Amino acid sequence: MPGNLIGERFVTMSFGESHGTCIGTVIDGCPPGLALTESDIQKELDKRKPGQSVITTQRKEADKVSIISGLFNNLTTGAPICMIIWNKDSDSRSYESVKTIPRPGHSDFTSLVKYGGFSDYRGSGRFSGRLTATFVMAGAVSQKLLHDVLGIETIAYTKQIGDICIDDIQLDVAREIRYTNDTRCPNNEFAKKMSESILEARRGGDSLGGVVEAVTLGVPVGLGEPIFSSLESDLSKALFSIPAVKAVEFGSGFRGCAMLGSKNNDTFYKDQNKIMTRTNNSGGILGGLSNGMPLVIRVGFKPAASILKPQRTLNLDTGDEVELSVSGRHDPCVVPRAVPVVESMVSLVLADHAIRSGHIPAVLKS
Amino acid sequence: MPGNLIGERFVTMSFGESHGTCIGTVIDGCPPGLALTESDIQKELDKRKPGQSVITTQRKEADKVSIISGLFNNLTTGAPICMIIWNKDSDSRSYESVKTIPRPGHSDFTSLVKYGGFSDYRGSGRFSGRLTATFVMAGAVSQKLLHDVLGIETIAYTKQIGDICIDDIQLDVAREIRYTNDTRCPNNEFAKKMSESILEARRGGDSLGGVVEAVTLGVPVGLGEPIFSSLESDLSKALFSIPAVKAVEFGSGFRGCAMLGSKNNDTFYKDQNKIMTRTNNSGGILGGLSNGMPLVIRVGFKPAASILKPQRTLNLDTGDEVELSVSGRHDPCVVPRAVPVVESMVSLVLADHAIRSGHIPAVLKS
Amino acid sequence: MPGNLIGERFVTMSFGESHGTCIGTVIDGCPPGLALTESDIQKELDKRKPGQSVITTQRKEADKVSIISGLFNNLTTGAPICMIIWNKDSDSRSYESVKTIPRPGHSDFTSLVKYGGFSDYRGSGRFSGRLTATFVMAGAVSQKLLHDVLGIETIAYTKQIGDICIDDIQLDVAREIRYTNDTRCPNNEFAKKMSESILEARRGGDSLGGVVEAVTLGVPVGLGEPIFSSLESDLSKALFSIPAVKAVEFGSGFRGCAMLGSKNNDTFYKDQNKIMTRTNNSGGILGGLSNGMPLVIRVGFKPAASILKPQRTLNLDTGDEVELSVSGRHDPCVVPRAVPVVESMVSLVLADHAIRSGHIPAVLKS
Amino acid sequence: MPGNLIGERFVTMSFGESHGTCIGTVIDGCPPGLALTESDIQKELDKRKPGQSVITTQRKEADKVSIISGLFNNLTTGAPICMIIWNKDSDSRSYESVKTIPRPGHSDFTSLVKYGGFSDYRGSGRFSGRLTATFVMAGAVSQKLLHDVLGIETIAYTKQIGDICIDDIQLDVAREIRYTNDTRCPNNEFAKKMSESILEARRGGDSLGGVVEAVTLGVPVGLGEPIFSSLESDLSKALFSIPAVKAVEFGSGFRGCAMLGSKNNDTFYKDQNKIMTRTNNSGGILGGLSNGMPLVIRVGFKPAASILKPQRTLNLDTGDEVELSVSGRHDPCVVPRAVPVVESMVSLVLADHAIRSGHIPAVLKS
Repeated sequence: MPGNLIGERFVTMSFGESHGTCIGTVIDGCPPGLALTESDIQKELDKRKPGQSVITTQRKEADKVSIISGLFNNLTTGAPICMIIWNKDSDSRSYESVKTIPRPGHSDFTSLVKYGGFSDYRGSGRFSGRLTATFVMAGAVSQKLLHDVLGIETIAYTKQIGDICIDDIQLDVAREIRYTNDTRCPNNEFAKKMSESILEARRGGDSLGGVVEAVTLGVPVGLGEPIFSSLESDLSKALFSIPAVKAVEFGSGFRGCAMLGSKNNDTFYKDQNKIMTRTNNSGGILGGLSNGMPLVIRVGFKPAASILKPQRTLNLDTGDEVELSVSGRHDPCVVPRAVPVVESMVSLVLADHAIRSGHIPAVLKS
Repeated sequence: MPGNLIGERFVTMSFGESHGTCIGTVIDGCPPGLALTESDIQKELDKRKPGQSVITTQRKEADKVSIISGLFNNLTTGAPICMIIWNKDSDSRSYESVKTIPRPGHSDFTSLVKYGGFSDYRGSGRFSGRLTATFVMAGAVSQKLLHDVLGIETIAYTKQIGDICIDDIQLDVAREIRYTNDTRCPNNEFAKKMSESILEARRGGDSLGGVVEAVTLGVPVGLGEPIFSSLESDLSKALFSIPAVKAVEFGSGFRGCAMLGSKNNDTFYKDQNKIMTRTNNSGGILGGLSNGMPLVIRVGFKPAASILKPQRTLNLDTGDEVELSVSGRHDPCVVPRAVPVVESMVSLVLADHAIRSGHIPAVLKS
Repeated sequence: MPGNLIGERFVTMSFGESHGTCIGTVIDGCPPGLALTESDIQKELDKRKPGQSVITTQRKEADKVSIISGLFNNLTTGAPICMIIWNKDSDSRSYESVKTIPRPGHSDFTSLVKYGGFSDYRGSGRFSGRLTATFVMAGAVSQKLLHDVLGIETIAYTKQIGDICIDDIQLDVAREIRYTNDTRCPNNEFAKKMSESILEARRGGDSLGGVVEAVTLGVPVGLGEPIFSSLESDLSKALFSIPAVKAVEFGSGFRGCAMLGSKNNDTFYKDQNKIMTRTNNSGGILGGLSNGMPLVIRVGFKPAASILKPQRTLNLDTGDEVELSVSGRHDPCVVPRAVPVVESMVSLVLADHAIRSGHIPAVLKS
Repeated sequence: MPGNLIGERFVTMSFGESHGTCIGTVIDGCPPGLALTESDIQKELDKRKPGQSVITTQRKEADKVSIISGLFNNLTTGAPICMIIWNKDSDSRSYESVKTIPRPGHSDFTSLVKYGGFSDYRGSGRFSGRLTATFVMAGAVSQKLLHDVLGIETIAYTKQIGDICIDDIQLDVAREIRYTNDTRCPNNEFAKKMSESILEARRGGDSLGGVVEAVTLGVPVGLGEPIFSSLESDLSKALFSIPAVKAVEFGSGFRGCAMLGSKNNDTFYKDQNKIMTRTNNSGGILGGLSNGMPLVIRVGFKPAASILKPQRTLNLDTGDEVELSVSGRHDPCVVPRAVPVVESMVSLVLADHAIRSGHIPAVLKS
C-alpha cells in the first residue's frame, strides 16, 4: 500500500491538501450499526480548530465536516464513510519561494526531491499539520465505536511545553478541564505558565515543542498482534505519522531504561476479580499485548519549524546561502492543537485491533 | 495481515518458537541478482548468539542458519528466501508454572488470555527474545542489499546501560570496536563500566535496561511514504516489535521538545554539491522523508523481566498472591545482544522503502 | 483490508451509494507528473453514462466528475486523487420492500443478512451497478498513465448478447466503432441484431446477459507477480468485482480445455527483433506473466436480475412465497454499459503491476 | 505485498522450488485451538502425490510433510504454522536448455525476462506444478478448520478431460468415489474413458486439458467483502494462481450469459426454516456474498504444455527457430492431480473470509 492509508480492518485513507479544494478521509471497515452524526465528528474537530486562542495560528477555518457516504438513518451501514472539510481561508501567497528556498525543519526540500517538483507546496500541501484534521475525523468515529461497544476512553493532555513539565496529573481533573484552557493542560496553573511561555517564544520570533501524554481506560486484555503488529508497534506507527512527532514512549519509557528490573516490573494482584498490576511501568502493554491496565503513552513534538526569526538556508537555484524569515500564519507551538490528534490516532489503532481480535463484532447489535 | 510479517515490498514472515523445533523466516520481495551465501547471514547471527560472554544467558545455541529456498548459484532469484535455525539447547523444565503463575513484566498473562491457553509457553514461545534471531536473518539480507546496491550502512551500539550513558561517540571508532567488547559499546572504557554494572545487577538477582543508538549512513533523499508510512512511522513500528523496547526517538527526540525552534531547526548548506544540514536534530528525517543526513535513532529497552530476586505475583488458579523467583537461563540485560537486532530492523525498513521508491530496482544488474 | 479497495501500489478505494449523496473514489499511488484533467475522466464516464439510448435505464445522471484532490497545475502530485460524482436523479420510492421481499438474482437477501439490516438498500446501495462509475473514474487515470508512459491501450467490446455472438472481430474496426453504437459492438450489423434482441427481451419483461471481450495492446513482457498475484489472478479478481460477472477466461479459455497440447501451445518466433507467438491461445499470459502478446480476456455477464416479468420469491417477515414484479428504472442488459467498466478494471490492474515491476517509475519525467 | 502470499486474515506464504532443497508454506492467522497433526496434512497431500498411476508423471516423491512450527500438544497455538516437504527425486539434467530455448506454453521465456536470468529454471522452479503441493498443505489446514468449526466441506472432481465431459453428477457418489479412480472423476465409467483418452494423447506425444468442478456445502450466508473482495473475486484470484488455469466460472457461468433473466434468476423459497433457491444458477453467490446454497465453481485447465511431439520455438541466443521435443517426466494431463489443489484453494479463501466475517472466532473453544 502507498502511504496514505492506515489500519488493517478499520482502515482510514486521508486525502486533500492544505491549500487545495478540501481535506478528507474515507474509513473502510467500520462495522454496521454504529449511531453516528456529523455532530459526533464536529465535536472532536472543534478541539483542534485553528484560531481559537491567542497562542494558535490566526488562519480562520470553521473546519465543518460533511459526511457524504456510509450513513443511513444516522447509523453506519458497513460501507465506506467519506468525510470532507472544504477549505475556506487558505492564503498561498507566501509559498512560492519554498520551491527554491527550503525552510529549515520543513518538508520543502525532501518533498521536492521525492516528488520531482510536482508536489503541491502551497501551505506545505500534504505535509501540513492541517491534514491532522483528517485524522481527527476518522478518529472521532473510532472513538465513538470504542466507547459505545467497549467503554474505552482515551484522555490526552499537554504534559510539557518547552521546559515546563507537569508531573503530577490527576486523570479525573484532566478529563474535565483539559479542553477548557488554551494549552490543553490538565492543570490550570500550569496551563497559564505554558501559555505565557508560548507567547514569549512567539514574541522572540521563535517557537516551542512539548509532550502530549495519552491515557486510555477500559482496554480489554489481549489487544495486539505480535510480533510485528504489537500494540506498541502499531500505536507508534500511527503516532509518528503526526507531523512534528520525534519521540514516543510507553509506560516508564526512557526513564525505565535506567531502572532495575525489580523496580520496573509491575507485580500482579487481584482486585474484585480483575487482575491488575500495582505499578504501571509497562504502560498497559506486556509482550505487545494490552494487559488491562491503562495505556500510558507519551508523544514528543519538536518545536514548530516555522519561525519569524531569520534562519540561514540555501537557495537551491543559485546554490547560495540566504537568510530566511518564515512568514505566513503558523502555530508557535503545535502541542495544544495536537492533543485531540493524539487521541484520534490512539483510537484508530485500538479500533483496528479490537476488530482484529473480535472484541468488536462484525455487526453491531441493533 | 496477521502480525507475523512486516514490510510492503520487502516482506519478512517470522515463524518458530523458542523451545520448538526451529525458528525461521521467509523473505518475499528480495530482488533477483543479489549475491548471498549462508555465511553472510551467519556473520550477523554470530553477533547476537547467546553464551558468548559472562554477561549473557548461558543457553548454548550455535544458531547455525540454513537457507532452504530462494538461492540459485549463490544469487537471489526473486523467489522467497526461507532460512531456518534448528533449536538445539532448549530446556523447558522451568516453564510449566507460567500458565498459572505469570511472571511480572512478561507476556505470560497477556498471551494466556489472548490465545485462550493454547499458546506455546515454553521459554516464552513466540514472545521469546530468541525470535529476534529471525529478525537478524532477514536483516542480514536487507543489510547486504542496501550495502551492495546503495552503499547504505547502519551502525548501532550500546549508548546506555542502567544509568551509565556515553554521550560523546565517534562513529568511526564505533564501527570498529562495538562488536569487540561484551556490551557492544563504542568506547572500551565505558564498555567495562557497563559490563561491571550488569554483573553487579545479576549478583543482586536483578537486571538492567538501556539504550541502543543506531546511525545509518548513505541514505538517499526521499525514502518514506507519508503520511502513514513515513520513515519514522515504519522504523518505529519495526523497532517496537523487538521485545523489551518501550521507547523510540529520532534525532534530538525528547530532548528537542524542550528546545527553541531556532535551535532545533537544522539549517541547510551545500558541501561539494551535496545538500547538508549543519546540525542533525531531525535525525535525518524531515516530513517523514529521509533528507540525506545520517539517520539517528535511539531505542530504549526496559530492564530484563526475568530476575532471580523474589517478586510478588498471582496464582491465577487459586487467586492467591505468591512469591516468585524466576529461574531458567536469562540475560541480565538484553541490550548488548539487541544491538545487531536494531541494525536488522532498521535495515529491513530501509530496504523496503528503497524498493518502494525505486532506489533499488526490480532486478539487480548482473 | 476490508473490501472497498483494490491494488497494491496503485490503490483505489471506492465509496458512495446508488441513492446516497454521491459516489466517489480515491486513488493512492499514482506517480507524480501525469497530465490529468477532469475531461480525461469525463470522456470515459460518458461511455457508461445511463440514459444514452433506448436499450439502457432511463435514470438521468450527467455523471459529472469533480476532482477534489491530488492535482496541481493539471498534473498529478503523488498525493491521493479524490474524485466525486454527486447523485442527482435517484428515486428510492420502489425500494422499501426489498428488506422483506428480496428480489431474485439480487444482493437484497445476502446483504440483509451480512450487514444485519443496516445496509442502505435504496437502489441496491453499494451493490448497484452505478458504483461501477467509480471504477471508471479510477480506471480513466490508470488508462492515461498506461498510455502516456508505456503506450498501452485496452480495447473492450461486446462480443455476445444473449445468444448472438460475434466471432470474427477486427481490432482496428473495434477501436473505431465500438462506442458509436448502442451495444458497444465492434460490428454495426451485429450491433443492430443485439440491440433488437435486447428490446425484444425487455418487451417480454425479461433481460439478457452477454460477454465482453477485452484486448490489451502494448503490454511489456513480465508483468505479474506469481504465484498468488499472477496477472490472471489479479485481473480476474478485479473483473469479478463488477456486478453480474460470473465467468472470466483468458486466451483460448474453456475452449482450450478441449484442445490437444500441440494445438493450444503457442510457438515462438521473432519478428523484427520482437519475440512473438504465432497463435495467442495463452491470451498473452504465460506462467502468470505477460508475454508481450495482446492480452485477451472474456468476461461473462449474467442477464440483468431486475425484470418486470413476475417471479416467485419469499416474504421474509411472513415466510410466505409471493409474486414479485421488479419495477424501477433498470438496464434490460448491462453488457453495453459494462464495456468501459471492463476497460477500467483491466487498466487498474495493469497500472498496479507496471508500478510494482518498475515499468512505470516512481516519478514521471517532467 | 509481493506475490507469494495470499489471504487477509488466514494468510499463506509459499516458498521453495521444484528442484531445490524443499517446498514449503507458512500459515499466519490460523486461530489457536484447532486439533491438527501431520497426518491431517498428509492425507490431502497423498491425493495429489505424483507417480500414483499410469496417467501421471513418473517422478517419485513421497511428499512427506513435516510441521516445524505452530503446534503444541497437537493443537494450533495461533503462531505461524510452517510445513515443509523435502525434495527427493529431482532430476535437473534436461533443463539447461530452457534458458536459451524456451518451451512453448511454459513460463521459460516470461520468467527469464522478468527475473533477468536469475530465476531457478530447473524443473520450472517456482512455476512448477509441484508448488501446488504447498497449496495443498495450507489448504488441508483450512479444510480442517472449516470442517471442524462450521461443517463446511468442498468436493471437487474432474468434470471434463479433453472433449469427454460428464454433465450429470451425483454429489454423494462424487464424494465417495472421486479419489478411488485415476482421473478423480465422479463416475467410474467416465473415469475409464477419460483415462484412456489421456493415455492416447500421451501415446501421440501430446497432452490434454480439462475442467474441475468444485461444490462447497455448508457455507453460511454472508461470506465475502464486496466490492473488491467479493467471494467470486477472491476465489478466482486463488484459483487462477494454480498453474495452467485459464478459465473460472460460477454457477451457470458462460452458459448463463445466453439465458433470459427469468430463467437464470434463482427464486427463493423456504425449506424447514432455511431460505433456499429452487435453482442454483448463481453458484451460491449473490452480490459477491454467499447465499447459503452450495458454491459451484468450474475451473478450466489448459492442456499440459510439456509434450514430446516436436514443436517449433526460438533459440534466444541465435535468434533461429528450432524444433523442440520436451523430455523430462511430466503429466500428460494435470487435471486429475489438480482436483485436491482446487479443493485447497477454495478452502483457503473460505477460511480467510470466515475469519474476516467473524464466523470463525479469534480463539477456538477448548
